[in-house]
Amino acid sequence: MIPREELARRLALLFVTDPDVGPGRELVEVVRAALRGGATAVQLRAKSAGTREMVELGRRLREDTAALGALLFVNDRVDVALAIGADGAHVGDDDLPLVAVRSIAPPGFVVGRSVDSAGEAETAEREGADYVGVGPVTATPSKLDAAAPIGVEGIAAVRAATGLPLVAIGGIDLANAEAVARAGADGVAVIRALTRSEDPERAARELLEAVRRGQRG
Amino acid sequence: MIPREELARRLALLFVTDPDVGPGRELVEVVRAALRGGATAVQLRAKSAGTREMVELGRRLREDTAALGALLFVNDRVDVALAIGADGAHVGDDDLPLVAVRSIAPPGFVVGRSVDSAGEAETAEREGADYVGVGPVTATPSKLDAAAPIGVEGIAAVRAATGLPLVAIGGIDLANAEAVARAGADGVAVIRALTRSEDPERAARELLEAVRRGQRG
Repeated sequence: MIPREELARRLALLFVTDPDVGPGRELVEVVRAALRGGATAVQLRAKSAGTREMVELGRRLREDTAALGALLFVNDRVDVALAIGADGAHVGDDDLPLVAVRSIAPPGFVVGRSVDSAGEAETAEREGADYVGVGPVTATPSKLDAAAPIGVEGIAAVRAATGLPLVAIGGIDLANAEAVARAGADGVAVIRALTRSEDPERAARELLEAVRRGQRG
Repeated sequence: MIPREELARRLALLFVTDPDVGPGRELVEVVRAALRGGATAVQLRAKSAGTREMVELGRRLREDTAALGALLFVNDRVDVALAIGADGAHVGDDDLPLVAVRSIAPPGFVVGRSVDSAGEAETAEREGADYVGVGPVTATPSKLDAAAPIGVEGIAAVRAATGLPLVAIGGIDLANAEAVARAGADGVAVIRALTRSEDPERAARELLEAVRRGQRG
């Protein structure tokens, strides 16, 4: 069981993976670079991958995250998360209900829940979520079915409603990471800010510094 | 824990679901009709469905199968199987490894494994499978990526290699169900023979009778 304060700290920079990392490099290399740069957690997200493929990628990510002390989550696939020994899973409206995840996962398994409002965050907390992923902060091309952006104000509203660790997600980059952290986010989740970066190690370092500045300020 | 002999009996007619059941009717209605006709087990297969959608369908199938004493399995998604209280899950080469399924599922959870040869059946038995799905018996349009048909002879070869309950799958219909059972199959798994039938209750009854004839003969 990871204490809440420690979980909040270890969610400072969450890299949500996307298979499309640009030509001439592999996802695992980009993840390693991000981890060297200070990414504190990785979420394996691979909506179109087959299960076995996801397990094989997940096992590689498990080795790399364990070696560098980062957390590993799996999006949606609780069975894959359990099979690869991930720290937890992240679920949204289209995934397993939180209560079902709790019923099949062992104690200590971390469960994150996507929310876009204070009300949803309260529901998630009541149903046993360990942290909330809140957004989208701005419009993002990574998730075309996402709801309307909630802005930095939306992050502050959810922060006021829950004591759960809070990760802001959706359209986060160097330009807004500090403001999001200042609004009360314990961390930021990014996809494109790392998958599309020419230097993911440096991008991770700069994002983490921005989060830290926002939390100090 | 279902004893092996009982499991073999309860796999006599396994309905593998497919969302495409033709115009003007719903999958759950077709499943109910098949259960009334004597289908002994249902496997929820929904490769393109979202997780939540699968859980909702699965819960309805769980009610109907429980009411009629039929087993319920879920293809690939072990987390969904656990969440809906299914009796077990069925996995193939592209799914969770058997050993991983065993490690995350509680004792008594039934695990089926797709195989297409005696050697694969022996491996599945060694790795802890509770039953094997063997095929394809003939070419089938339901699974375009399936391997070459193994015929009734292939069923007999796997039967000789393993004591596990054996379900023949792939291109099974009224024309070959009896021969497949005579070759040693404990049951047959069908998709189109029920989803495309105008009268799934009658089709299930006739298939089950054919299996029983083959087992007596």
